[in-house]
Amino acid sequence: MKAPDFPSPSIWHAHRVSYGETDTMGYLYYGEYLHVFERARSAYFRTIGMSYNEVEAKGFLLPVREASLRYRRPSRYDDLLYTRCAVSEISRASLTFVYGIYAEDREELRVTGFTQHALTDRGGRPVRMPDWLKDCVARVPDGEVVLV
Amino acid sequence: MKAPDFPSPSIWHAHRVSYGETDTMGYLYYGEYLHVFERARSAYFRTIGMSYNEVEAKGFLLPVREASLRYRRPSRYDDLLYTRCAVSEISRASLTFVYGIYAEDREELRVTGFTQHALTDRGGRPVRMPDWLKDCVARVPDGEVVLV
Amino acid sequence: MKAPDFPSPSIWHAHRVSYGETDTMGYLYYGEYLHVFERARSAYFRTIGMSYNEVEAKGFLLPVREASLRYRRPSRYDDLLYTRCAVSEISRASLTFVYGIYAEDREELRVTGFTQHALTDRGGRPVRMPDWLKDCVARVPDGEVVLV
Amino acid sequence: MKAPDFPSPSIWHAHRVSYGETDTMGYLYYGEYLHVFERARSAYFRTIGMSYNEVEAKGFLLPVREASLRYRRPSRYDDLLYTRCAVSEISRASLTFVYGIYAEDREELRVTGFTQHALTDRGGRPVRMPDWLKDCVARVPDGEVVLV
Repeated sequence: MKAPDFPSPSIWHAHRVSYGETDTMGYLYYGEYLHVFERARSAYFRTIGMSYNEVEAKGFLLPVREASLRYRRPSRYDDLLYTRCAVSEISRASLTFVYGIYAEDREELRVTGFTQHALTDRGGRPVRMPDWLKDCVARVPDGEVVLV
Repeated sequence: MKAPDFPSPSIWHAHRVSYGETDTMGYLYYGEYLHVFERARSAYFRTIGMSYNEVEAKGFLLPVREASLRYRRPSRYDDLLYTRCAVSEISRASLTFVYGIYAEDREELRVTGFTQHALTDRGGRPVRMPDWLKDCVARVPDGEVVLV
Repeated sequence: MKAPDFPSPSIWHAHRVSYGETDTMGYLYYGEYLHVFERARSAYFRTIGMSYNEVEAKGFLLPVREASLRYRRPSRYDDLLYTRCAVSEISRASLTFVYGIYAEDREELRVTGFTQHALTDRGGRPVRMPDWLKDCVARVPDGEVVLV
Repeated sequence: MKAPDFPSPSIWHAHRVSYGETDTMGYLYYGEYLHVFERARSAYFRTIGMSYNEVEAKGFLLPVREASLRYRRPSRYDDLLYTRCAVSEISRASLTFVYGIYAEDREELRVTGFTQHALTDRGGRPVRMPDWLKDCVARVPDGEVVLV
């Protein structure tokens, strides 16, 4: 999952490992990476001046259907991580994000994974992907770094 | 905060410390105790066959206004804790819960604290404490142990 | 992932959804399920009077290498969930757990998934699976329900 | 707790509210603020090129003895918060941090609180505050803003 293999556009999101996120082993707890994925996903939308809040306000929800993680190297308290995040697939009914979490040097890979999201209305019924949501993806500035 | 000082009725709620709740020090992370308090608070309502869900369904919210914790001894992964929980004060506009988190023997005190809650409607405006909510407290079975 | 497909022995672990585990959608947050998996995994060892603490005390760590989750139906605050948990594969160098999270009726499936763990020493170097760890799995009482 | 009342030096730490930190009410969960406090505390040390890691590496731990929070206004998903953080008291045996969490404008106050920490060795025994730790506080650049 080196740079050339990553879908384009992709963004980078910085995350500092807090003490509360670590466990007795001294590692960033394995469940916390799904929070880190989510933070990168939110940052992805913010790069085009959009918030996932607005997606919800328009009546669309993006509940997660599937998530997968591969843990390569551990992270520790105070590590500065960079999450690379992109949309790898957008279909009529679902959206897939891929993630690569790197050390501060953005070279050493720590965790990779993906999340697949359904598109539903507020009642949880599947709805068709609107064009404006597809257009959002095209407008994401490739390589943008989001600090907060 | 020995037994005699604790308001009556009080209930006990069991909590097993998970790996993900601990930190690099090997201790239950200090912020997790507010989750443990909340679990005991929910159990308090469940002892009278009521859920905080129903409080909300009736249009009442109990947002926290103040929280205070005193950490006496650390807890570790796999410890079985018992939280004693009672309402210490119920006024026109607020409700105060007190907590004592104990080791498995229910003698060794780990953490004490309180949370004070306002009573508001869904729009966040203060409302007067209804009698049925006061009555709930009187009906709690003193000494009940809630495992899950 | 009905009962017949589940490896044997398997255990059940009860988990009550707390308010703090839910999100703005009103659902149990997708990352929290990895905590629920971990709680079931710990309960699995406890059914034979063993703690993961002891595994660590003997110098073995079981860091997660891979995790995968499929979200079928959402869970909400105060739901009582039952996690079925079993070891699906045990090799020279790794251990795989499978999970099925069910509603209170233990019929309605909410989330399924697996976690694969390497076996390492304290320095993070891979070590060979000791026989006593394999024997542990054989001793787990099939169908046991762990409440806390 | 306006600017003039805040001890000097103080720093600001930015925090973006994630979806996973919110609850069914749509608010940042009350227990998460202790994580936000901790992030600000860590940032405080980082402003002088120091990590709490180094404090621990020198054999000192700063376990929390007491924590107190006052919740003034709720925060929601995607809010950008700024935490002001300062040491309000440093004695022979303990260290007290005060916090003010503000909205993005750094005017609207959301949560205030403090944490009091003991100073112990690795075995949990109280030790005397070393001069270098006191000196750290004096070197913190007043008004510094830490983004990540």
